[in-house]
Amino acid sequence: MRVLGVDPGYGRVGWGVVTREASVLKAQSWGLIETDAATDWSQRLASVYDRFSQVLALEEPDIVAAEALWFGANRTTAMGVAKAAGVIALAAAQRGLPVVEYKPSVVKLTVTGNGAARKPQVRAMVTRLLRSSELPKVDDVADALAVAICHLQHSRLTQMSSE
Amino acid sequence: MRVLGVDPGYGRVGWGVVTREASVLKAQSWGLIETDAATDWSQRLASVYDRFSQVLALEEPDIVAAEALWFGANRTTAMGVAKAAGVIALAAAQRGLPVVEYKPSVVKLTVTGNGAARKPQVRAMVTRLLRSSELPKVDDVADALAVAICHLQHSRLTQMSSE
Repeated sequence: MRVLGVDPGYGRVGWGVVTREASVLKAQSWGLIETDAATDWSQRLASVYDRFSQVLALEEPDIVAAEALWFGANRTTAMGVAKAAGVIALAAAQRGLPVVEYKPSVVKLTVTGNGAARKPQVRAMVTRLLRSSELPKVDDVADALAVAICHLQHSRLTQMSSE
Repeated sequence: MRVLGVDPGYGRVGWGVVTREASVLKAQSWGLIETDAATDWSQRLASVYDRFSQVLALEEPDIVAAEALWFGANRTTAMGVAKAAGVIALAAAQRGLPVVEYKPSVVKLTVTGNGAARKPQVRAMVTRLLRSSELPKVDDVADALAVAICHLQHSRLTQMSSE
């Protein structure tokens, strides 16, 4: 199963493809979509949509796992992020791909064992689980890989419990 | 100027096209996009996007005026609505149409003179301003026409103050 994890955003969208063969997790590819802050917000959404659609075409995942949104201090930002999550889910749905969402606390708990883990801790565990030292030191990408790992772990538990 | 007003939603998207010639406002057309609650959420987003794109192709507005989101009691609903607002803005941006947003309180204030007006009051004023008795008694459509009227009034004020 090829899982494309995504950390939705307005200005930055982290993504990463993780596979599991036997019990070995592997990061196949990853990247960051950035949009120009000087551009109109609806054009930035169009840019996220176009580039994420290209990623889906190129990477051919089986499923998209997205970090669910939470409400921080800034509600306007949260709304912008939700709009970006909308066009990301649209791009997936148009290709017939299922989209699943995991709350940040669930992702952190699954990946590090601590639902309130900080970003460096998540990044360190992602690097360790994927047995790689080459992973980029960008939080958005680490978060995207973390949600992909989270989905693989959850689907493995589901699979084990039904055996 | 043909303004397409839209009241974004997950299950229901109201829309309405309003024009102004001289000082006469006129509702040219309106409608409601509904999605099936039994369908997967990302498929519902795709359905909103497809059908809203068809409305844009048919109605050929000059601009899209959308009701900005507010945070009610239910944050999960707000996030769903924001995702729908994202795919609606995307559809507009892909046709090169500008998207403007107005807060509900601004729409109510502009249309009724009361920023805390209730829905029946908004509906009554929309019907009166558009000199029509045929307008549908659906709040989502009345809200969409209200935001279109709001944009026309605001752009008129802007125009007048620059003369």
